[in-house]
Amino acid sequence: MKIIIDAFGGDYSPEEIVKGAITSVNLIPDVEIILTGDKEKIENILKQENYSGDRIEIVHAPDVISNDESPTMAIRRKTESSLVKALTLLKERDDIIGMISAGSTGAVLSGGLFIVGRMQGVKRPALSPFLPTVTGGKTLLIDCGANVDCKPEYLVQFAIMGSIYVKAMLGIENPRVGLISNGVEDHKGNEQIHQTFELLKNTKDINFVGNMEAREMLSGDYDVLVADGFTGNVAMKSAEGTIKAFMQILKNEVADSGLKGKLGALMMKGVFKKIKARMNYTDVGGSPFLGLNKILIKSHGSSKAKTIYSCVLQVIDIYKSNYIENMREGIKNSSIAEEK
Amino acid sequence: MKIIIDAFGGDYSPEEIVKGAITSVNLIPDVEIILTGDKEKIENILKQENYSGDRIEIVHAPDVISNDESPTMAIRRKTESSLVKALTLLKERDDIIGMISAGSTGAVLSGGLFIVGRMQGVKRPALSPFLPTVTGGKTLLIDCGANVDCKPEYLVQFAIMGSIYVKAMLGIENPRVGLISNGVEDHKGNEQIHQTFELLKNTKDINFVGNMEAREMLSGDYDVLVADGFTGNVAMKSAEGTIKAFMQILKNEVADSGLKGKLGALMMKGVFKKIKARMNYTDVGGSPFLGLNKILIKSHGSSKAKTIYSCVLQVIDIYKSNYIENMREGIKNSSIAEEK
Repeated sequence: MKIIIDAFGGDYSPEEIVKGAITSVNLIPDVEIILTGDKEKIENILKQENYSGDRIEIVHAPDVISNDESPTMAIRRKTESSLVKALTLLKERDDIIGMISAGSTGAVLSGGLFIVGRMQGVKRPALSPFLPTVTGGKTLLIDCGANVDCKPEYLVQFAIMGSIYVKAMLGIENPRVGLISNGVEDHKGNEQIHQTFELLKNTKDINFVGNMEAREMLSGDYDVLVADGFTGNVAMKSAEGTIKAFMQILKNEVADSGLKGKLGALMMKGVFKKIKARMNYTDVGGSPFLGLNKILIKSHGSSKAKTIYSCVLQVIDIYKSNYIENMREGIKNSSIAEEK
Repeated sequence: MKIIIDAFGGDYSPEEIVKGAITSVNLIPDVEIILTGDKEKIENILKQENYSGDRIEIVHAPDVISNDESPTMAIRRKTESSLVKALTLLKERDDIIGMISAGSTGAVLSGGLFIVGRMQGVKRPALSPFLPTVTGGKTLLIDCGANVDCKPEYLVQFAIMGSIYVKAMLGIENPRVGLISNGVEDHKGNEQIHQTFELLKNTKDINFVGNMEAREMLSGDYDVLVADGFTGNVAMKSAEGTIKAFMQILKNEVADSGLKGKLGALMMKGVFKKIKARMNYTDVGGSPFLGLNKILIKSHGSSKAKTIYSCVLQVIDIYKSNYIENMREGIKNSSIAEEK
């Protein structure tokens, strides 16, 4: 299985990305990695890390797209960048099953759209990470940032795509779909939500549970959380920030507490480590950009080797779930119901 | 200082609301409470609690507005409800400085608008709670749910109202205003945010810092967080839900851990209690509905006596800050800059 990775995307690129590739080929028997980026620099890191195998290929790409550039412009002009090279190969070569980039979100999304291309019938591909739930499961947030302005029909398709993906990935037969709103009652929401609600109610083949509050996102009561990319992004980042704030306040309060509190914290270290691992979903993979013709994972900008390795596992999982075929079939058969 | 409280709003009404009124007059020397609701029931609770003073007055209102009713309809028709009676007295009587209700959010907001009325020049009053920050301070979220569909001009006025309120309440001279978006860069956001950003950039007398990520809401880097009521609601409830999820996961992990983890948790009890008190802002007051002619606090639906007491303190704080006069003056002098 060949996976292509943009070696020059992300805050810790290229070192951590290359290290992640090495970890991947070392730990996963049948995987091969193609890295795009400055060949000499990548070779130096491989040498430094004592990697001498033949399961990492380098495709030279001297340019880099930064976070400050206009995504669409950069994608069009920087054809020699590690990102555009990787996307082009992903599109062209059938033997490459998927791609990972920790680079500029905007550029990865634009490139995914314009270079790799949408699956037939898909209106808007969507960025869709799994979030951890209190019940130990996962819930899919779709969209978390690819489409900031959405028509109600897009949201309906997110519900369909999310349901197909969750079914394929988690084996859940009838994924429960919730529409993120400002209350659970049917009449809650803004104009966009009202229209979407009516459409979703009449959409066949999905298990639409109704409006939901952002408070219940991690409750385990929903398998698919539907939102436009702006709302989804705010919901997800608010959760992220709250965890960060909580941990910081915890640290401060422990520092301010007496010996008992400090000792207690020390004894709870194992527990905290476990919680961090559970809540910190950015460590355990990236967000797939659902609705493209190929598997494309946007990994967190602060990805380290461990994250890249997780993303490689994720690409393989998605590939083995037959997601592309399932999605093609599902989208073809889906019909957005007319409003009553 | 006379404060009027809707005794029949909230999950634990009337018992906890009446108890909160008793606590308030017992602990705050110069406050008098007017309770609206079924006179006999309220008198029974007062008797039960051995209250025999003369600083709690009852205004009989036999009807109750429930959460299931259409807010605007209920406000218009149920003139004998505890909520409508309280709002009417708040509007009519100059000696009443403010009001508290833990009842249906929709009904409290509709009633505030239609009965109490908007301050001159205010386009849309907004629900504006303080959230705790990691640095031990507070940040104002405006709007957290009153206006789900907003024009950019409304958001600009939220920034102005929020700045005036934060200055009056916290004594911060130049409150830092952030616009909740899906990234910090100027070009981030949906269509609404783009337009609002341009307007805010050119608004005088506020300290507009720029777009911000929901991740930074509690960071302490912002004094006023501006959002439409839908986005604000999602951001706030996502944070609330995350705290709830975190505490639940913590509990589960401790239960699953060995003796060391359990003992550690026991020793950290004091620390956790402090954190809970800091993060659980719903215990420490309600959300003022800013931009009305009078002080109106929407208290959490699950308010207990302690919450009501906090809200009474909050009304007094707001009253003493001369917020009404400051806001009138500020709104009069503010001019929304034209887009360049």
